[in-house]
Amino acid sequence: MRSSQSYKAILSYDGTHYFGWQKTRTGPSIQEALQEALAQLCQETPLLDAASRTDRGVHAKGQVVAFSLAKRWEPPRLQRALNAVLPHTIRIHQMEEIKESFHPSLDARQKEYRYFVCLGAVQDPLYRLYSWHYPRKIDLAKMHQAIPYLQGTHDFSAFANRREKNPLCTLFTIEITSLENQRLQISLHGNRFLYKMARTLAGTLLYVGVGKIASDDLPSILHSKSRTKAGMSAPAHGLFLHRVYYSGV
Amino acid sequence: MRSSQSYKAILSYDGTHYFGWQKTRTGPSIQEALQEALAQLCQETPLLDAASRTDRGVHAKGQVVAFSLAKRWEPPRLQRALNAVLPHTIRIHQMEEIKESFHPSLDARQKEYRYFVCLGAVQDPLYRLYSWHYPRKIDLAKMHQAIPYLQGTHDFSAFANRREKNPLCTLFTIEITSLENQRLQISLHGNRFLYKMARTLAGTLLYVGVGKIASDDLPSILHSKSRTKAGMSAPAHGLFLHRVYYSGV
Repeated sequence: MRSSQSYKAILSYDGTHYFGWQKTRTGPSIQEALQEALAQLCQETPLLDAASRTDRGVHAKGQVVAFSLAKRWEPPRLQRALNAVLPHTIRIHQMEEIKESFHPSLDARQKEYRYFVCLGAVQDPLYRLYSWHYPRKIDLAKMHQAIPYLQGTHDFSAFANRREKNPLCTLFTIEITSLENQRLQISLHGNRFLYKMARTLAGTLLYVGVGKIASDDLPSILHSKSRTKAGMSAPAHGLFLHRVYYSGV
Repeated sequence: MRSSQSYKAILSYDGTHYFGWQKTRTGPSIQEALQEALAQLCQETPLLDAASRTDRGVHAKGQVVAFSLAKRWEPPRLQRALNAVLPHTIRIHQMEEIKESFHPSLDARQKEYRYFVCLGAVQDPLYRLYSWHYPRKIDLAKMHQAIPYLQGTHDFSAFANRREKNPLCTLFTIEITSLENQRLQISLHGNRFLYKMARTLAGTLLYVGVGKIASDDLPSILHSKSRTKAGMSAPAHGLFLHRVYYSGV
């Protein structure tokens, strides 16, 4: 149970060596690292709610976490103190007090994921942990043609690696941007994302780019609700939870 | 001794876990990794000459290496085969045949080093291995004022961590660029660089930025030839050997 004063933290992390946000028995998690830092600092072990349960190996630029502490802290002091004990792979960029009813996932209005791809024959070693190396000839125009078929409100079961009660999601925008060094950024804005949906959207868009899937087949793929019809789920290390938006922000 | 056919390779590497270019008895080196890949592939252990003996922890975007092999290879095939056996932290971006007399360091006309700094209070974990975190208030105008004092041909002994026979170097240009996320890029073009000179130039420019050194003191610092007068050598992990230029290229 949350008590006393609640805090909202925005954090970034290099997910390479973590087993995702969620605590597991098999390996280190972001949640656990943050809990240990709080225990060390405050001698408290509050419940931590996150905007997204990022998978093993997925990174974050703007994960949002909420928790409550019995002791009251000045937010900037709490932020600095936590950054001083957290591993270098996790950093809190912003900390503020928030009302206890705030829930970073349930209250989220919109989430942005970004997926990064290196298309060149040889991948720069500096991107190896943060981009999928996909050294194929891509037809960018075809990828752009696919966007209108995927934007909007759909049953995204065909893009989810798990059945969910409510498979309806709204994708507000998909943006595909060419970056320097033959890199590609796929930006996905949605109200919610099913399990592995962001990575399956990225993988499917790349399949469209290389001609494995035709963009005008996307309506029937969505309609099929069958995960076998869409493209592969792109690997975790290219994905970033970029930002979470809330009402009135 | 080089024999048969000589090759020029351009490579990038993540220097984080290497003890620099040069083979040492204390830890892994880029040279050793490349030699092992060549031995595995060609059953040859040629001498390797590099454009720059990058220090422990320094990265490269465009290191140039030359070697000779008894067996003749198609350069693209040799490149692909080496990339297949090299660690993921090292990649060859270009491979070509070259005349045996070519020496990547002695023939270099110009080298460009780039130094990266994160100025914000909190450093994004993704930059932690590739940028120096220097969370101070910087006066960029002051840094720009320092540039003309350092450009040109000078005795750079005050910026070298080792006495050298010929301390005369020409710095063609210094460029300071603000990047997104409160990052700074310091680009240094020179004909040659003394030991730790690039890192001491970066450190000194930042000292000028925070007011620890006045830019119009730079002529007397150069004149003193005393390493104690210049700023600190910025740490290795922010430095990249960016590119090496040769005549006729």
